[in-house]
Amino acid sequence: MSDKLFFGNKSGDDILKIVSGFHSFPAPGVILGTVMVDYALLMLPAESEKDVIVETTHCLPDAVQLFTPCTYGNGWLKVVDWDRFALTIYDKHTLEGFRVWLDLEKLKNFKDIYNWYMRLVPKKSLPLEVLNPAILEAGAAICSGKKVKVTGLYGKKEKKNIEVCPQCGEPYVSTSGQVCPPCSGSGYFEYK
Amino acid sequence: MSDKLFFGNKSGDDILKIVSGFHSFPAPGVILGTVMVDYALLMLPAESEKDVIVETTHCLPDAVQLFTPCTYGNGWLKVVDWDRFALTIYDKHTLEGFRVWLDLEKLKNFKDIYNWYMRLVPKKSLPLEVLNPAILEAGAAICSGKKVKVTGLYGKKEKKNIEVCPQCGEPYVSTSGQVCPPCSGSGYFEYK
Repeated sequence: MSDKLFFGNKSGDDILKIVSGFHSFPAPGVILGTVMVDYALLMLPAESEKDVIVETTHCLPDAVQLFTPCTYGNGWLKVVDWDRFALTIYDKHTLEGFRVWLDLEKLKNFKDIYNWYMRLVPKKSLPLEVLNPAILEAGAAICSGKKVKVTGLYGKKEKKNIEVCPQCGEPYVSTSGQVCPPCSGSGYFEYK
Repeated sequence: MSDKLFFGNKSGDDILKIVSGFHSFPAPGVILGTVMVDYALLMLPAESEKDVIVETTHCLPDAVQLFTPCTYGNGWLKVVDWDRFALTIYDKHTLEGFRVWLDLEKLKNFKDIYNWYMRLVPKKSLPLEVLNPAILEAGAAICSGKKVKVTGLYGKKEKKNIEVCPQCGEPYVSTSGQVCPPCSGSGYFEYK
């Protein structure tokens, strides 16, 4: 496997543009994510139907949504909130997959990226114009990967029974209580 | 406000194409989501910086990601898992916003959409070619909306301290324990 992946015939500039168009700016975490997605995909059969699990809510989900068919809303991407830069892409039928993670030992050889990831320097001293090319140049050389069998979190998220909240009249999932979450006091808004 | 929104000069066909390109198929839930996003945006000042909270993991997050700058990975979109078709778009500085929800009372006048949403008929009897035009035709006539003040879930998700897991050597957030979640037995994979 080459350390330089770059999504087939896409250039680094192409990737920066695609990422900016969706994520609103070329966040280094998404750029790093594109490398990780590409690495995992190269290690799996092209023809299999794939789902993805991502281990942080920050940045990495957007790389998956941009460079695979798996999105948060179609349910083929699942996210666990471990603040860990790692992902697993796997065959949704056999559950055989490949996990890729940012490898700190390898990253130590790439000082700028290491300092950014470990938050050892202020953001301002590492502009995106330095950091992003460094990540694209490093490619998969800063990651490790291993075959896995997925043992949890797989499968379709079941839709539950919909009932009408007796208090507000909106539909809600009845397993969450006698009234809906906002009516039971766990909402995030107040009407004006 | 007109009941037909259609995102400025985008046609229904444009919307179906954009949704299919990201979500992999023109899911009625995403089509309905585009109407809801558009309704909320029309009720808010164009120039404000906006964040979004979505009340279901199904479909609706993708409409937000496609038709606003807010994505799951950039943190401007947050999701609560209430299985409720509703969203709030709000000014991230003042927390003043507008909540839009699917209104069951109004929906009763749109039989196909009502039967789909309440899961009263088998999927096969309501093909996308019938359901999606019905949703686009109904537009905001099946939704209600109200001004809100956001009281929770706003703000940037803080990044916590990164430590190195003494067992596997991967970086992880130290508040989650002495070792990382997979090493403590709450993982989703086994290495092969």
